[in-house]
Amino acid sequence: MTAYDDLMEFERDTQALGQVSGRLGWDQETMMPRGAAGQRAEEMAALSSVLHARRTDPKVGDWLAAIDDSTLDAVGQANMRHIRRGYTRTMKIPARLAAEQAKLHSMAQGIWAKARADEDFAGFAPTLKQVLALKREEAAALADGGDLYDALLDDYEPGAKASELEAMFGALRPRLVALRERVLGAEHQPAALEAKFDEALQLELTRKLAVTFGYDMNHGRIDKAVHPFSSGSGHDVRITTRTSPYDPFNCFYSTIHETGHGCYEQNIDDAYLLTPLGNGVSMGVHESQSRIYENQIGRGQAFTGWLFGQMREVFGDFGVADAEAFYATVNRVNSGYIRTEADEVHYNLHVLLRFDLERAMIAGDLDVDDLPDAWNERFVADFGVAVDKPSNGCLQDVHWSVGLFGYFPTYSLGNVYAGCLNKAMRDALPDLDAGLATGNTAPATSWLRENVQQYGGLYRPKELIEKACGFVPSEAPLLDYLEAKFGGIYGV
Amino acid sequence: MTAYDDLMEFERDTQALGQVSGRLGWDQETMMPRGAAGQRAEEMAALSSVLHARRTDPKVGDWLAAIDDSTLDAVGQANMRHIRRGYTRTMKIPARLAAEQAKLHSMAQGIWAKARADEDFAGFAPTLKQVLALKREEAAALADGGDLYDALLDDYEPGAKASELEAMFGALRPRLVALRERVLGAEHQPAALEAKFDEALQLELTRKLAVTFGYDMNHGRIDKAVHPFSSGSGHDVRITTRTSPYDPFNCFYSTIHETGHGCYEQNIDDAYLLTPLGNGVSMGVHESQSRIYENQIGRGQAFTGWLFGQMREVFGDFGVADAEAFYATVNRVNSGYIRTEADEVHYNLHVLLRFDLERAMIAGDLDVDDLPDAWNERFVADFGVAVDKPSNGCLQDVHWSVGLFGYFPTYSLGNVYAGCLNKAMRDALPDLDAGLATGNTAPATSWLRENVQQYGGLYRPKELIEKACGFVPSEAPLLDYLEAKFGGIYGV
Repeated sequence: MTAYDDLMEFERDTQALGQVSGRLGWDQETMMPRGAAGQRAEEMAALSSVLHARRTDPKVGDWLAAIDDSTLDAVGQANMRHIRRGYTRTMKIPARLAAEQAKLHSMAQGIWAKARADEDFAGFAPTLKQVLALKREEAAALADGGDLYDALLDDYEPGAKASELEAMFGALRPRLVALRERVLGAEHQPAALEAKFDEALQLELTRKLAVTFGYDMNHGRIDKAVHPFSSGSGHDVRITTRTSPYDPFNCFYSTIHETGHGCYEQNIDDAYLLTPLGNGVSMGVHESQSRIYENQIGRGQAFTGWLFGQMREVFGDFGVADAEAFYATVNRVNSGYIRTEADEVHYNLHVLLRFDLERAMIAGDLDVDDLPDAWNERFVADFGVAVDKPSNGCLQDVHWSVGLFGYFPTYSLGNVYAGCLNKAMRDALPDLDAGLATGNTAPATSWLRENVQQYGGLYRPKELIEKACGFVPSEAPLLDYLEAKFGGIYGV
Repeated sequence: MTAYDDLMEFERDTQALGQVSGRLGWDQETMMPRGAAGQRAEEMAALSSVLHARRTDPKVGDWLAAIDDSTLDAVGQANMRHIRRGYTRTMKIPARLAAEQAKLHSMAQGIWAKARADEDFAGFAPTLKQVLALKREEAAALADGGDLYDALLDDYEPGAKASELEAMFGALRPRLVALRERVLGAEHQPAALEAKFDEALQLELTRKLAVTFGYDMNHGRIDKAVHPFSSGSGHDVRITTRTSPYDPFNCFYSTIHETGHGCYEQNIDDAYLLTPLGNGVSMGVHESQSRIYENQIGRGQAFTGWLFGQMREVFGDFGVADAEAFYATVNRVNSGYIRTEADEVHYNLHVLLRFDLERAMIAGDLDVDDLPDAWNERFVADFGVAVDKPSNGCLQDVHWSVGLFGYFPTYSLGNVYAGCLNKAMRDALPDLDAGLATGNTAPATSWLRENVQQYGGLYRPKELIEKACGFVPSEAPLLDYLEAKFGGIYGV
């Protein structure tokens, strides 16, 4: 046994325990009896302590010191990259700070939820200030004198730099704002759905959709949850969805989105099971998979043609005349306050707003007390209306309450990557739409598996997308795609 | 912080991790995708290693050495009794032996299942010999020169002695054999159910039954499983059931049985949550709760009268004329090969057979190769027929394949305890049947909660039952109950 073998054996158990922790999280959102929440918090805390102790075990430091990465093959070197990165980050954060944050975040989430329900930003502000103060302390510990925000961003998108994202998002924003104005000003606006859709039938069709997109039910399952999510890696990857009687698209496109996340995890090379390479490589790449399944494939004209037929079979006549009207209805653009309900045109504008505001907060350039005004000013600029209440503005997302600073931009980065991958995939598969029009997603999902998903954590995120696309990723393909698609639907 | 406080804080995390392990076991039997089994085995092994490391942590030994139990109150002393006992037992077993057993048992279960399917005892015998050899080695390590079987029994029923059980069971056996002969020879035999019962309706009624028996759905849930079980302690106690279209009693009485186990865990004093006192105190006491719910209450004439009305409401006329005929049908005695399907008269005869044979194997008085003959000989003696095939004989139970020697007798001890508790409860609550006839189990379940369940691990098992009953537990109340009940139904 070499030091590398010892380390990998130790890491395998750590990965396995991480999977256990994920499974408990799934249980909490889907199965757990309501009255078990307090006990579960203690169970999770005990498991987190175990994981933290393993991640900071002095043995790991000894192994890392003893291993010469240059003697390893590409897989070995990639494993070491992940382990060294995780260990270095964990060791930089004082145990005292980690404990304070864990305690504060679990409390802050409840305070945020109450403030949101009460439309009371002032009730949340003191807590957000505390969260921000500790987060800046964490960033300083991680940054080694470098950019504070980059240090946080790196947790979700290894290697990404805020300055690069700023340039990319800076190019996105004006064209998106212009596109939304053209679309909302168009003479003809698609109709919304008006029928009621049986929820049990929605769930039946949604299972068919997941399987149609290649989700493997032998290594997964679908349940209902208030906020859909996917969970787990390797051979046990579970997804969730939700139903709403008047909005079956919520169910179907939540499912297709989570199927994208789930298939990514399911399709990673089995050789990487329970190793650092056996998980999706970054939040941005993960989101690229969920979004390309959901939007570029699932909301495309070809696939919605097939979905229209499926819905007619299941629900009968639901008031939409034909596949073309259905395509427009699926892609109906609607200005709104809430990020998670946004269409493809608006979604990134919501994210870019958060990215700029959270960077300013981390940099110390924006006080928590000034956040609502800053939010509203930006919202007027990009969406043309003022926010009417805090729950529709800066209190709408849970992220900041639990310390997720640096997470938001990965949503838009994922959309940018999805745009790039869609371009490369369609160049490689010119007949793709003919298959999608019959519900055959296999050429698309196979292309994504071969070019992205199978590699797990082998390559760096940006390197992986560039390798898959054959060009340097940029925002241009996404913008071209959005302008062509919505220009076509709205005739603008 | 005293050494006792430190130890209890450490123990609390260990208990929490034990709950996590139980939750994974529940998931495996109810929710886990089939293809996840291999990965799950690794996850469970990683968690087991963590638990084993905590249970043998030298810090625990230091704390135990530093604590003077006599300075503690009754709760503290009971905690120490459990922790000292667990630590001492774990430390006596060499790590090498524990690892060999874990590996062998996980393999042996598969070999047993195949041998049972193939009716091939010879295919299982070499593996059972290995299991037995390691089990005898474990018993020798635990026994310190004392009785080998007692050392194993103590794992499931702390403080119990095989010699005491032998005396108790020796008194049970002849009267049970005589009773079964009288009953099966009776002129009038109750009819079996012949209708078909919708399985979704069975599940609906079974949920009502669980709640009727006091099961708290806010701290539990009911799912389907191939082999019903209950799982978890404290605020998250889950039970399972199964359905069979022609045998709704299988569903209803599995549920009531597991409800007994579940309520025991749910009703333990909250002050003991995640401490050594926060779990049922022994397998025998646990089984006393499941069996008294299932049999002495659930299969009693008063309660079956109410159940008959419920089933008529849900299923309409199912071919049973009245509550009296229904009571006889519920309690129909039927000779059979399979322990888990046995009625109240036969059940303990199945267990006693296994108790005697496994004691002989552990003592070295019975070779594995001679097990089928010994089984069949005893079966003819007690049941009047020879076993027709191994799957109906010594291959029917999983227990021995996974090293559960010393477990079987706790089933019958539980029945004996249920007999004692039933006598005491009915003496204390003379009007009990009037309530049960209207589906009101609260007086019974409250009595059991007050006198047994709330105490968790505070008292020793036998001490707990004696305290609850006000007399020294013996087999006599169970025998009196069975003879009166089945004598009445069968007119013998």
